[in-house]
Amino acid sequence: MKKIPVELQVIGIIHSPYKTREQAPRQGKDDVSEIEIYKEYEKGLKNIEGYSHLHLFYWLHESKGHRLLVQTPWAEERHGLFVTRSPHRPNPLGYSVVKLIEKSNNILKVKGLDAIEGTPLIDIKPYIKKIDRIENAISGWSEKIDFKF
Amino acid sequence: MKKIPVELQVIGIIHSPYKTREQAPRQGKDDVSEIEIYKEYEKGLKNIEGYSHLHLFYWLHESKGHRLLVQTPWAEERHGLFVTRSPHRPNPLGYSVVKLIEKSNNILKVKGLDAIEGTPLIDIKPYIKKIDRIENAISGWSEKIDFKF
Repeated sequence: MKKIPVELQVIGIIHSPYKTREQAPRQGKDDVSEIEIYKEYEKGLKNIEGYSHLHLFYWLHESKGHRLLVQTPWAEERHGLFVTRSPHRPNPLGYSVVKLIEKSNNILKVKGLDAIEGTPLIDIKPYIKKIDRIENAISGWSEKIDFKF
Repeated sequence: MKKIPVELQVIGIIHSPYKTREQAPRQGKDDVSEIEIYKEYEKGLKNIEGYSHLHLFYWLHESKGHRLLVQTPWAEERHGLFVTRSPHRPNPLGYSVVKLIEKSNNILKVKGLDAIEGTPLIDIKPYIKKIDRIENAISGWSEKIDFKF
């Protein structure tokens, strides 16, 4: 089974200060994005206010094609695609941890999202620090990169 | 645009000590899983050995349907689906941070994966601690749960 035909359910839409791919930062900065969760999924947000951070999963709808070796802006050496955050992937799945600033009905205000305006959201999961925060991670080639957050 | 028809590209397959959903732990434990990356994607792993941890994204192919309010094993109160890690979601996207133990050609040995045998892998991203490790996260209802890792 090398391909799985699916219909992704769009659960909401990302409203971003970045209107084009060129405007989008590499990884999130401190700008605020608004996530509009479609009304039919609003109930699924119950108790989300208690969380400071969320994992967001979205579909990079403007991504096209991919290469398995990638030149990043931070290194001359090419790295394997799966060791980079390049948006050009076999499955253009976007992923960020964001800070939840405010929830108002079906609207989530978040900080730290690099997605562009109109990006379809496909999942939200809670950031649970006992599971997701790795104390002693070693980050390979990116260990010494200054991402300028 | 509320649905996106796509063909997910399976980049590899998860070989797990958990053969059925009933055997799978809630969140990863210390068991070792083997990820077999299909040969045609192997080049995309270049330099992955430098990373201690990876984000894995997989398709929960046995998931069926979802409810927007979820009773978890840890609380009587029902929580919004997007504030839980339930596998039953509008898009059954599985996500874990795992520890990379060893890479041997196209095989990755990892610890901490809760996926069952045969789960299709759809993406790998590097765990970059400057981006992904949130120092002061507050984890809502799950803040005080002892997940018994």
